[in-house]
Amino acid sequence: MKRLCFLMSGVLSCLAMPVAGQAAAVDARAGIEKFNTQLDDATRRMDNAATLALWADDGVSLLPGSKPTVGKAAIRAFLEGVTADIKGARMQHFDMECEGIEVSGDLATEWCNEHQVVELPGGKPPFDGRGRMLLVLRRGGDGHWLLLREMWIPAEGQ
Amino acid sequence: MKRLCFLMSGVLSCLAMPVAGQAAAVDARAGIEKFNTQLDDATRRMDNAATLALWADDGVSLLPGSKPTVGKAAIRAFLEGVTADIKGARMQHFDMECEGIEVSGDLATEWCNEHQVVELPGGKPPFDGRGRMLLVLRRGGDGHWLLLREMWIPAEGQ
Repeated sequence: MKRLCFLMSGVLSCLAMPVAGQAAAVDARAGIEKFNTQLDDATRRMDNAATLALWADDGVSLLPGSKPTVGKAAIRAFLEGVTADIKGARMQHFDMECEGIEVSGDLATEWCNEHQVVELPGGKPPFDGRGRMLLVLRRGGDGHWLLLREMWIPAEGQ
Repeated sequence: MKRLCFLMSGVLSCLAMPVAGQAAAVDARAGIEKFNTQLDDATRRMDNAATLALWADDGVSLLPGSKPTVGKAAIRAFLEGVTADIKGARMQHFDMECEGIEVSGDLATEWCNEHQVVELPGGKPPFDGRGRMLLVLRRGGDGHWLLLREMWIPAEGQ
């Protein structure tokens, strides 16, 4: 912190002011928290267009049991495939808590725990699952953070 | 690239010289490739001390079926636990291929495919497994890259 001092009504007052680097770090954290809110919201609404808008064009999704999904077109096809497979499903509950944010330049990372309950059509019992994600974000030229890498693991009972 | 031109024996010659940012990117990539070689080597030798030396003090390992392993002391305990569980085992084969290196400031990411065959004691059949890792690296003050985040998924048949 930098101290900014001034005289007011004859009394010397000092304020602790963040220096430029700290201000940038605060901005980055706020931007990443906004990204998290948007990802949480898009997932809860099962809104593929909103989810895709959060991916970088060269993003890569790494999921168990699949080859790497490389690039936004492939990620779109993957999301549309999932939606088609569970047509009529509805997200009953979704929450996501992220931690461990680290930022340098235009890259950032964090990991998130998620819990989802999805109502399935045709009288099937709902899917109730927990997972953990390692995310890498990249800040674009417009200052918005986008998803560059994602890996997911199951996290039942943890 | 920047062009550096000079007269030699009366002939104007030009060399394409990397500009500072490009030189830094080349240095970062070389440093990350060195890290990869060291991680590959330490894993092949099942050398826990050498593996630990590649972790940041605040590193986090995220593996299926486990709570997050947070910090070097916890990662040390995890590695020592695995070694004790398979006492007498020997790495027969290990290879690791990484791709998708992205760097900004002092953070970098890549993902790696690995294949390991481990001879187990007591006449058990060898463990032959394939996995994929998403890694996040951080460059320390001494210029060396260290592992800050790791997540692993099985990748059989992919």
